[in-house]
Amino acid sequence: MRLDKDQLAHFDEQGYIVMPELFTADEVAVMKAEIPEIFAQRRPENVCEQTSDVVRTAFATHTYNEVYRRLVRHPRILEPAEQLLGGKIYVHQFKLNAKAAFNGDVWQWHQDYGTWKRDDDMPEPRAMNLAVFLDEVNEFNAPLMIIPKSHNLGVLEAGHDLTTTSYPLWTLDNGKITELIADGGIVAPKGPPGTGFFFHGTLVHGSTANLSPWDRLIVYVSYNNCDNAIRRFKRPEYIAHRDFTPLEAMPDDCLLTVADEAAE
Amino acid sequence: MRLDKDQLAHFDEQGYIVMPELFTADEVAVMKAEIPEIFAQRRPENVCEQTSDVVRTAFATHTYNEVYRRLVRHPRILEPAEQLLGGKIYVHQFKLNAKAAFNGDVWQWHQDYGTWKRDDDMPEPRAMNLAVFLDEVNEFNAPLMIIPKSHNLGVLEAGHDLTTTSYPLWTLDNGKITELIADGGIVAPKGPPGTGFFFHGTLVHGSTANLSPWDRLIVYVSYNNCDNAIRRFKRPEYIAHRDFTPLEAMPDDCLLTVADEAAE
Repeated sequence: MRLDKDQLAHFDEQGYIVMPELFTADEVAVMKAEIPEIFAQRRPENVCEQTSDVVRTAFATHTYNEVYRRLVRHPRILEPAEQLLGGKIYVHQFKLNAKAAFNGDVWQWHQDYGTWKRDDDMPEPRAMNLAVFLDEVNEFNAPLMIIPKSHNLGVLEAGHDLTTTSYPLWTLDNGKITELIADGGIVAPKGPPGTGFFFHGTLVHGSTANLSPWDRLIVYVSYNNCDNAIRRFKRPEYIAHRDFTPLEAMPDDCLLTVADEAAE
Repeated sequence: MRLDKDQLAHFDEQGYIVMPELFTADEVAVMKAEIPEIFAQRRPENVCEQTSDVVRTAFATHTYNEVYRRLVRHPRILEPAEQLLGGKIYVHQFKLNAKAAFNGDVWQWHQDYGTWKRDDDMPEPRAMNLAVFLDEVNEFNAPLMIIPKSHNLGVLEAGHDLTTTSYPLWTLDNGKITELIADGGIVAPKGPPGTGFFFHGTLVHGSTANLSPWDRLIVYVSYNNCDNAIRRFKRPEYIAHRDFTPLEAMPDDCLLTVADEAAE
């Protein structure tokens, strides 16, 4: 799968692309079927909400779960990401962000690459995120909010937010956010399960609390160029990976054949 | 000003009515001009956010500010409220809810009448809220979310939420909210400054955190029937008023003539 000229131009100018119906209902069902078992585990990779025992983020699921091992090698996300990043890539970070109904806390405005640079010493912002919605994302279950064009400014100054999130995050100050939004506005991509959403590693984003009765589970795969590997190993391996082997694409039906192959 | 048959039926069935352009830009400007001075005051009526020194709610402004003294007597809100409540009314509670940019915390799902009954011993749910937007309310500055039809069930069971709000509130449990939303959905009225929004005292509502750079200031006037006055005076007078004198409507231009009359 290749992105066309308009998609590439949109990503370049705006910092993101939304891909409706990137995965089918059957493929989403395969991915969702794994969730209860993954989220029931209490392991270091599973970080809970600050105010409850509900899993907020499950890291590194692709390292121990076959369905998600395949997802990060799926040609519908791996190939466009290679195209956007201009070369072979590996997974720098993988997370399932739950934003559970009634429990999902705020994520303050931040840039992912800000953390990758400061904490992991990733040389250049040649890294990006690929989100896949596993639940419907609507107006009320705290959609990711992005600031279009904010990726153009590179790494912005930031401080550590320790009061509102359960996970240390380099967050931006309100004056800068006001400026960025005056220029680019706010966009909150919404859509049914299976929607894909690519965004640049320096694109500023955040999300509010989820007060609705609807879970909002999103998979985030952060891809990095193999020649842009991190140089500091301060954070746990399951948060900032150290396996820089180039990923090879699997067949397009690889999510649908998991069960068959397991049965063989 | 009188509500028509369709508006009365909508309020009866759904528990709310949205009134676009209820106040003009000039009238909104008169109301907004008072805000900096009101919010700069540190007085018991002004309650701050849990995590900052930003005013979250300014109570009872109509008792000491001439513009807001007139607002609660404005025929465009007083007369429809008399019509909906079926008789002469007084102000049970008045608040300016700031939901300031970057600072506005969550309000959990609740019914206002739940508090009026439990804390103030208001005999019957013959009381309602009238909201006037003083800022634009949009998708991103934490609009009030309401559950249509939820007013039909009367007072629901509730417990005190003390963790997420800076002001004690009787909030509903997640199972009940899920049921109510399955039936009525969620609606979040939006619109420019001057939009009016009437809702029943037992309508379930809440709002999420405001991460946007846009303030979201709303005036809420809670009217109660004069023959339904509260019987317990546990909460401060500025939160649950004890002056049950029927309000008399002022002229339709009363907000625009404040300055002239002050100058005389």
